Amino acid sequence: MDALRRQLLDLFGPHRAIVNEAALLAYECDGFTVHKARPLAVVLPESTAEVQRVVRLLRAHRVPFVPRGAGTCLSGGPTPAQPAVVIETARMKQILRVSPEDLLAVVQPGVVNADLTRAVQHLGLHYAPDPSSQTVCTIGGNLAENSGGPHCFKYGMTTDHVLAAEVVLADGEVARLGSALGPHAMGELDLVGLFTGSEGTFGIATEITVRLSPDPEAVRTLLAAFASMEAACGAVSDIVAAGLVPAALEILDQATIRAVEASVYRAGYPQDAAAVLLVELDGPALAVDEDAQAVRAICARRAALSTEEAADPENRKRLWKGRKGAFGAMGRLSTDLYVLDGVVPRTRLVETLRAITGIGARHGVTLTNVFHAGDGNLHPNIAFDGRDPEQTAAVLAAGYEILELCVRMGGSISGEHGIGSEKLDHVPLMFTPDDLEVMRRARSAFDPEGLCNPGKVLPQRGSCAEPARWPKMVERVLGGGEGR
Amino acid sequence: MDALRRQLLDLFGPHRAIVNEAALLAYECDGFTVHKARPLAVVLPESTAEVQRVVRLLRAHRVPFVPRGAGTCLSGGPTPAQPAVVIETARMKQILRVSPEDLLAVVQPGVVNADLTRAVQHLGLHYAPDPSSQTVCTIGGNLAENSGGPHCFKYGMTTDHVLAAEVVLADGEVARLGSALGPHAMGELDLVGLFTGSEGTFGIATEITVRLSPDPEAVRTLLAAFASMEAACGAVSDIVAAGLVPAALEILDQATIRAVEASVYRAGYPQDAAAVLLVELDGPALAVDEDAQAVRAICARRAALSTEEAADPENRKRLWKGRKGAFGAMGRLSTDLYVLDGVVPRTRLVETLRAITGIGARHGVTLTNVFHAGDGNLHPNIAFDGRDPEQTAAVLAAGYEILELCVRMGGSISGEHGIGSEKLDHVPLMFTPDDLEVMRRARSAFDPEGLCNPGKVLPQRGSCAEPARWPKMVERVLGGGEGR
Repeated sequence: MDALRRQLLDLFGPHRAIVNEAALLAYECDGFTVHKARPLAVVLPESTAEVQRVVRLLRAHRVPFVPRGAGTCLSGGPTPAQPAVVIETARMKQILRVSPEDLLAVVQPGVVNADLTRAVQHLGLHYAPDPSSQTVCTIGGNLAENSGGPHCFKYGMTTDHVLAAEVVLADGEVARLGSALGPHAMGELDLVGLFTGSEGTFGIATEITVRLSPDPEAVRTLLAAFASMEAACGAVSDIVAAGLVPAALEILDQATIRAVEASVYRAGYPQDAAAVLLVELDGPALAVDEDAQAVRAICARRAALSTEEAADPENRKRLWKGRKGAFGAMGRLSTDLYVLDGVVPRTRLVETLRAITGIGARHGVTLTNVFHAGDGNLHPNIAFDGRDPEQTAAVLAAGYEILELCVRMGGSISGEHGIGSEKLDHVPLMFTPDDLEVMRRARSAFDPEGLCNPGKVLPQRGSCAEPARWPKMVERVLGGGEGR
Repeated sequence: MDALRRQLLDLFGPHRAIVNEAALLAYECDGFTVHKARPLAVVLPESTAEVQRVVRLLRAHRVPFVPRGAGTCLSGGPTPAQPAVVIETARMKQILRVSPEDLLAVVQPGVVNADLTRAVQHLGLHYAPDPSSQTVCTIGGNLAENSGGPHCFKYGMTTDHVLAAEVVLADGEVARLGSALGPHAMGELDLVGLFTGSEGTFGIATEITVRLSPDPEAVRTLLAAFASMEAACGAVSDIVAAGLVPAALEILDQATIRAVEASVYRAGYPQDAAAVLLVELDGPALAVDEDAQAVRAICARRAALSTEEAADPENRKRLWKGRKGAFGAMGRLSTDLYVLDGVVPRTRLVETLRAITGIGARHGVTLTNVFHAGDGNLHPNIAFDGRDPEQTAAVLAAGYEILELCVRMGGSISGEHGIGSEKLDHVPLMFTPDDLEVMRRARSAFDPEGLCNPGKVLPQRGSCAEPARWPKMVERVLGGGEGR
């Protein structure tokens, strides 16, 4: 190991190769703080050639690498599951090309999501996927996790906005996947789609071509408060059934509203409401006006306690402040926050939320709910003290049951946070051993020796779904073992 | 072989196993009539279990299979490149489930594209991808080729509308890829995206879950005639630059207009025009009105000779009739029609079209152009007599040069027709040997023994790009050899 660390120092110098144990502490987890593991070293390359060099060196040593963007991932993606070197993209921050004519930009992976929009807004353009962490998270990390965000209901996930990527594979080879020419030029195997969301297990992206979207002519944001979660979810169903396609359809439950209002993210949400529904409409001004009227009428029919509309950008920002700050507000309540991510059919939201409350009560954990109601993507949040192993075990048990419930409801264990290390035990709930074998084969095609972020996304062969297995994760993440 | 044929007859009976040479003649090519090869047999399964059974039997004999929908493919996809048995999905025509609530349908692969829309139109829904062949082509074939169509400019290709698929792999194993829960539930490797457009080289889909789209409130169709191709393309650039997103943006050149007007597809297009531009706008009524005014103004600024608007569904149908019948009208001019498919950046359309005319003249072939102008997807058509080997060779040479030109312009060799056997020689123009190796590995992960439509999509190892190689295809398709 010392030999490898020396070689990394030789290659990158002391400022771009971190080998000091104290400094490595900062890299021992992402937003899924339950799983901690310090990497052997962290390097900060500045170019594709430098990434190639470190990948080749690591391969010679048979040491895996783990790509990392800003570390805001919520499923343990950039936390090593086996002893590994982290390749951080923080110094690959260049926007290489913006082509307003072709509605695309070519960026290095370390470009911050919101910075890309900032760089193109004078052209009337923006980058559509907007995870809550967009002011810090990177395009490379978004690609690895196929990140979503509130506006993905209308505009699609990261995969719908990545046109092409230059990637370094396990053996240091550079491949170009996809095409910058848009949907009508996909006449090849969709490898960029396969790479997107593969959580670093297929290689590392060093240059990404993304689609830029024209700003809508008009945007209107409405906030409706309801006396019950049922009424709020009913309004969402009615909006979708009416053929309206809002840019965002977000619900916050009462516990979240109160946490937000007690925090710096205070947005003026009505604290008596059982739930608030945030609806954003965008498009041509005339159509947006019409749609806003329709949404108001639906909320009235669902007996909304109040419906507020942001009349200017400042108030729009305020209405969003509570939603965007929800995780931050919840995070204040304790040392750790477990942000879950599951999906159920929109029609089963109410039933699922009720069952989630039951699970929380049974395990004695503090549960709140914020979610992308339009596509049934739930984010139950559990605030807890990660220093207390017993509390942590209860939180993980509740989390396991909640995702199991999502599957039972006909849903999925992951909407937009990825599998990472967090959901390895849950994967067999959704896929048969045959399905998993096909995925393993696709992965081996890219990384036959298992050097790209091993131990993520796909569980070990022979894993099977049984609720009793959840303590496996507890063992893995609390009981020490590999990677620590 | 006789043993295999007997076993197929035993399994499927004489009506669903075709082994007679005369009957097999109907299966010797698709819409790419240059490449002809008779299959060893054709079977027509009716269920996933039957597909499994035949795939297992073929594997035991080490005989490959080739999936086939309606045979409307334009790149030789369902034509065997090696001795193989064709699995036709004509008897798998059931729409298994329609869920208006979840905006999806589950269909067998042999369901005809337009039949799906017909089956859901009373719900105010439709299936968006609309290849020209939509009245006969199948959803399974669309999936295999990742088919496009005029409306894909706004609504995306087949891959954007396939949520999940049940597929039978090379070894007869059934795998379920993707999720019916929509974009916010992709927390797994995007194998359904990889499978879509893999042209049967990864296996055969036996059940497909597709997205259904709500019908727009209003649709308006405009036809503008121009005195030059430059003006028509200029109008397209202006429309896109103005931030308008029409549902379709189609151009027909003068030769196509005249062929259409001389045929049963007569649509009343102005025959003096150098080009006509068909613009379809859809969405909320008020927004569509506004956009139609903007399009009219742009066409006027580009000195349109005339601008006509369809005021009712009947006239709308008439305006589309010419576009949809363009290939049919061209087909009347000769025994064979080679419909090319290449992409160039929208900004280089005019320049490319001029060069294409030059290539046609040099090879003495009759060339016309119809294209999806919005995304630079060209369809040069060459009418010829396939019984004349010299003429055929000239047509293939012109075709090769045209696609090479597209690549030189910064474009692609395929927009929506796939690679098939047609473009094998062109693939190395776009991809390095390393890129191709990655694709081969992904393919081997699914089909290690090369039993799924072998000889398609990916050229043999060691192929390289040199214009002098185009006669390879001529040799392959005219000079006999394997598979004939």
